[in-house]
Amino acid sequence: MAVYTEVSADDISAFVAEYGLGAVLTFKGIAEGVENSNYLLQTEGGSFILTLYEKRVKPEDLPYFITLMDHLAARGITCPRPVHDLEGVALKTLCDRPAAMVSFLNGISLKRPSFAHCGELGRALAELHQAAADFTGFRANALSLEGWQDLAAKAAPGADSVAPGLEQTIRDEIAWLEAAWPHDLPSGVIHADLFPDNVFFLGEKLSGIIDFYFACNDALAYDLAICINAWCFEPDGAFNATKARQMVAGYQAVRPMTAQEIAAFPILCRGAALRFLLTRLYDWRNQIDGALVRPHNPIPFLERLRFHQQSLSAATYGFDAE
Amino acid sequence: MAVYTEVSADDISAFVAEYGLGAVLTFKGIAEGVENSNYLLQTEGGSFILTLYEKRVKPEDLPYFITLMDHLAARGITCPRPVHDLEGVALKTLCDRPAAMVSFLNGISLKRPSFAHCGELGRALAELHQAAADFTGFRANALSLEGWQDLAAKAAPGADSVAPGLEQTIRDEIAWLEAAWPHDLPSGVIHADLFPDNVFFLGEKLSGIIDFYFACNDALAYDLAICINAWCFEPDGAFNATKARQMVAGYQAVRPMTAQEIAAFPILCRGAALRFLLTRLYDWRNQIDGALVRPHNPIPFLERLRFHQQSLSAATYGFDAE
Repeated sequence: MAVYTEVSADDISAFVAEYGLGAVLTFKGIAEGVENSNYLLQTEGGSFILTLYEKRVKPEDLPYFITLMDHLAARGITCPRPVHDLEGVALKTLCDRPAAMVSFLNGISLKRPSFAHCGELGRALAELHQAAADFTGFRANALSLEGWQDLAAKAAPGADSVAPGLEQTIRDEIAWLEAAWPHDLPSGVIHADLFPDNVFFLGEKLSGIIDFYFACNDALAYDLAICINAWCFEPDGAFNATKARQMVAGYQAVRPMTAQEIAAFPILCRGAALRFLLTRLYDWRNQIDGALVRPHNPIPFLERLRFHQQSLSAATYGFDAE
Repeated sequence: MAVYTEVSADDISAFVAEYGLGAVLTFKGIAEGVENSNYLLQTEGGSFILTLYEKRVKPEDLPYFITLMDHLAARGITCPRPVHDLEGVALKTLCDRPAAMVSFLNGISLKRPSFAHCGELGRALAELHQAAADFTGFRANALSLEGWQDLAAKAAPGADSVAPGLEQTIRDEIAWLEAAWPHDLPSGVIHADLFPDNVFFLGEKLSGIIDFYFACNDALAYDLAICINAWCFEPDGAFNATKARQMVAGYQAVRPMTAQEIAAFPILCRGAALRFLLTRLYDWRNQIDGALVRPHNPIPFLERLRFHQQSLSAATYGFDAE
């Protein structure tokens, strides 16, 4: 939940006028997104989300995110569609911050997605990958192997205060992944943060995918491995193999994966678990006094990592045995 | 900004079904109100605000607030209109908390209201007082003289750490107000917390008054004194006499005040300044670690109190000399 920058009525009225969208009808800070300030904005011209990009987003990355959403929306993906002002500009400035307005998407995010929702998510992820296949932008994944090494150097020393043996677990896992990580899988644009709170549903139907601010170019199958980690573990830590099976089947119905991708899948799942373990561990140990956002507990991702370490075959995740 | 209680998609769908308002289209926590959890809810039947009442609201007071909003909305006041479920119930339970759904009001709250907005506010306040004249509910003002004495006993000792001499200033002011406070002014329902963030405008037109959770029965003129404190001081501390004049004129155009009310007005302004000084001082000195809301600085209300202490006549606030 976050509104870091307060925008005055005069500021928002002047800003909206640049789009020719009529008068402002309502303007409310919303508790969505933890990195940026988000507002619900309704004008005579429609409903929108206005985002002010705060310090954790690099301004030089914003054109990639904005043009990616433009690209995906034009291909029918239900993602926020950037709104361009009367001069055609989508990435603007408001209150001294980069700012963009996107279309409002109906739907609600689910705390407890069902099997059916997981199947929908798998299909939508593959459609997103396919729709982005001809996107010409490129952004390296700052949170892959190299990024993990940097994060581990900062977050691992003293990590045993969070869980006994955690520092060694991280060092061992990074060493193992350095040796095992696949480098020649089919790649393209991945969302890279497709947790349930970034997906809207209307009933069983997926109605929106939001928050593209970790999107980057990387192995497509790694994106599915992130979703397995984010959607298929129950609150008590149990891996829900039925949800994984539905998600994998949904994905493969749209984009069948190669034998190499399937063989590498357990490794990708370990990498995805480590990635979220490291960022959550870092935020957990570097809590800012007076921050408006409470960091996530890293421990569930340690448990997920341990699960994946025991998984020797892609069959665990619902792929058919070769 | 506040969302203290997370409501799941299943919970909200079941809740909305009890109203017969169709399917949920969107459901977002909003950064509005500091005491309760507020959600924007759109269903096939319209747009609403859902409030879950958190610990600072006494459950036994809620029927007063809800029936007051029902009463005012029925008389054309642009306040949230409580929505009744299929059995006629407006005050319900959700996630183990009292909860109510009200109509959504367009408009935006202003950080810097103009003269014209202050005039509109004065008129709207008088209309609210008149519309509530035949409301039969009664709630004592917990934050009048007696309440201030209790608060001062808790917040004054050691207050000099916030501003030198503050403890003595509070004790002296309470003693002065005990002697001077008028007890026989025209009374009725007052909003009691009508700050600019509780009022919506569309352009220059007032479109909504929200947050009735301090409403109570007290002197009507005291409500206007609160608004003078809340709307007519500039960020640098200056009293804007033109705004006050417009507000008073707007109020009197609808409900002309009695000579007794006008004569008492400088005293009421001192009381209103002390009331917000005390609650802000208390919250300032009792900040909760990890709270999602940053308390307001009490010092501006100390400065406003000092201004009123120097004001010997209602003419200061824009009343015509008798």
